[in-house]
Amino acid sequence: MPQENKVGSMLSSYIGYHLPSSYSLGTQGAIKYAIYYSSEFLEVETVTVDPPKEGEVRIKILASGVCHTDAYTLSGADPEGIFPCILGHEGCGLVESIGPNVTTLCPGDLVIPLYIPECRSCKFCSSGKTNLCSKVRTTQGQGVMPDGTTRFRCGGQDIYHFMGCSTFSEYTVLPEIAVAKIRNDAPVDKVCLLGCGVTTGYGAAINTAKVAIFGLGGVGLSVIQGAKQRNASRIIGIDIDPGKFTLAKQLGATECINPKDHDRPIQQVLIDLTDGGLDYTFECIGNVQTMRAALESCHKGWGTSVIIGVAPSGHEISTRPFQLVTGRTWKGAAFGGVRGRTELPGLVDLYMAGELKIDEYVTHRLALNDLNKAFDYMHSGESYFRQPIAILDNL
Amino acid sequence: MPQENKVGSMLSSYIGYHLPSSYSLGTQGAIKYAIYYSSEFLEVETVTVDPPKEGEVRIKILASGVCHTDAYTLSGADPEGIFPCILGHEGCGLVESIGPNVTTLCPGDLVIPLYIPECRSCKFCSSGKTNLCSKVRTTQGQGVMPDGTTRFRCGGQDIYHFMGCSTFSEYTVLPEIAVAKIRNDAPVDKVCLLGCGVTTGYGAAINTAKVAIFGLGGVGLSVIQGAKQRNASRIIGIDIDPGKFTLAKQLGATECINPKDHDRPIQQVLIDLTDGGLDYTFECIGNVQTMRAALESCHKGWGTSVIIGVAPSGHEISTRPFQLVTGRTWKGAAFGGVRGRTELPGLVDLYMAGELKIDEYVTHRLALNDLNKAFDYMHSGESYFRQPIAILDNL
Repeated sequence: MPQENKVGSMLSSYIGYHLPSSYSLGTQGAIKYAIYYSSEFLEVETVTVDPPKEGEVRIKILASGVCHTDAYTLSGADPEGIFPCILGHEGCGLVESIGPNVTTLCPGDLVIPLYIPECRSCKFCSSGKTNLCSKVRTTQGQGVMPDGTTRFRCGGQDIYHFMGCSTFSEYTVLPEIAVAKIRNDAPVDKVCLLGCGVTTGYGAAINTAKVAIFGLGGVGLSVIQGAKQRNASRIIGIDIDPGKFTLAKQLGATECINPKDHDRPIQQVLIDLTDGGLDYTFECIGNVQTMRAALESCHKGWGTSVIIGVAPSGHEISTRPFQLVTGRTWKGAAFGGVRGRTELPGLVDLYMAGELKIDEYVTHRLALNDLNKAFDYMHSGESYFRQPIAILDNL
Repeated sequence: MPQENKVGSMLSSYIGYHLPSSYSLGTQGAIKYAIYYSSEFLEVETVTVDPPKEGEVRIKILASGVCHTDAYTLSGADPEGIFPCILGHEGCGLVESIGPNVTTLCPGDLVIPLYIPECRSCKFCSSGKTNLCSKVRTTQGQGVMPDGTTRFRCGGQDIYHFMGCSTFSEYTVLPEIAVAKIRNDAPVDKVCLLGCGVTTGYGAAINTAKVAIFGLGGVGLSVIQGAKQRNASRIIGIDIDPGKFTLAKQLGATECINPKDHDRPIQQVLIDLTDGGLDYTFECIGNVQTMRAALESCHKGWGTSVIIGVAPSGHEISTRPFQLVTGRTWKGAAFGGVRGRTELPGLVDLYMAGELKIDEYVTHRLALNDLNKAFDYMHSGESYFRQPIAILDNL
């Protein structure tokens, strides 16, 4: 039976509660969600969310971060955008119902949807070398579930999924393998950020001596936290907005640099400052020029640069091959290289223990009805590189 | 006292001999060498080779391979070329005399000059992460010895060193740290190739499952040998000249591909052929387009591409950052990552034991007087990507 509930009033509180395993979510009402119809504006409408099929779960989303990837697709610049769709991929919520043969999740479980699933059986998962599970990649890229259909309908029209998550909806459906179960006492309006930005940065950080981070938004700040956790001796934050330096230092940066304060290219500034260059650099912006600067800031012989930021479609990175022949390594990471189902619960534990800061990233709290404002805040700079949170429950 | 000997007749044989440690090389006569005066032709003239200063050794070169890097500088296309200079960097010879405070070499030692030295004390050597010793890098790049002067003079004019080696000369002078001592029974006209090409390829090969090598010249063939030695299950050789496939297979390639036989880009061909791409690829040509193809032939999630070929000045590599974000790694290696003084003797042992093939690489044997013909052979394709050897002793 399709889920058409208006469920806003069903949960008295979602911060710090414990759900009994028999907790039953309601089944009547209308679903609100924000559909992207290929404009620059999200329409909040009522949608039918079909029940989960075999191997799938339906999730009541309680909170969702708003990420630049949502804004990018919303802008129309992403040639792979498929619409109409429901955006959002940085969410947290409760399993509402499960389809046949779901064995690892129960209704009432608190979960984070994963845009990179973890099937634990495909070639990629079995390799032990990567988190890039390939199990549902093709259909996910087409905006549909693994069986080739969508679970969203509105006015007789199919509505597509986005990044396999579609968290800007009161309910969404995901494959079981694309859901990380976390402890039920975690605050959803904070740990939802582990669904993308925080994990992407924190997981990519590497135990090493000298680190530089290009771009001090949510991802960059998380790299800083990861580097600090792993005892990096020197953590240099780089941003053209010095307003970000205070928080960066609070989270672990040992120094911050504004490239605009220097006449020379930033890579030259950094090489001089660090006696030859960095051991590791991280690009957390998505600008191909910064990616080049990050590589060229690395120490000859062993420096490694990691691309985390997502560049606009068609943009390419370049450098002289001599940079690599002389011992630098250029690589990248998606979702911080983190295996979602296996590793996200541990990140939640770190947060709960106070060792991973997330509260500091949240700039605004908005009801789903006001979601368009989140993008206004983002573009105005008020929350640029940090995350507004859409609360889907109108608390 | 400057060394000005004509020594051609002094050694009865240089293949397979044993020199007693007291063996004395003569000290009278005129030195032949090939000077590059910024034309496309090498002049063979007589030069004065000064004695070695503190920490230096003077070497009687017995044989030298002819490498594309020599041809590149000879062409005038290298903006860092300094002339007049004595080219050649792939040599083998005998220590003739040593300067003060040289402790690891004696006259009579058979040695291979190193364009990447190994001081064992600088930041790079101490790191344990790279073979790129920095000790004499600056002066070497300026065509002079570490004290800022040259050891070559001709008609009152200073003649510059090339890559710190200048092996197209009967005698040359190097810092002690830039000389690898090898066993005295090695055939100089074969192991001289360990001074560059063979080591560059063999050392870069990595223990892994599926490997593709772009460019089946001396370097590429050596990667094949290295991959075979390390038990790679699949070794794919790629070249637009199918005439190279026989030797490639003889040395270990399991299959060879000519990109011209396919309508689709070679990266697509390889990805289909290998169920998703290669674990490792090696670019051994120096073409930035091939470097891109080699990267994009790598398997998502873990594939690594290693740039070995040296691109022309000003050429840049490019790709979509997505290639890296989805788990591919782009790196490079110089001299195969091999620490010359420490590791070259072992490669010579491998050759002597028949486990590393070098004889197959030699296409022509030429006296120093005929050195210009080596470049003709190279450019005509007769020895393209394999090495003519210049014998400096007119055997």
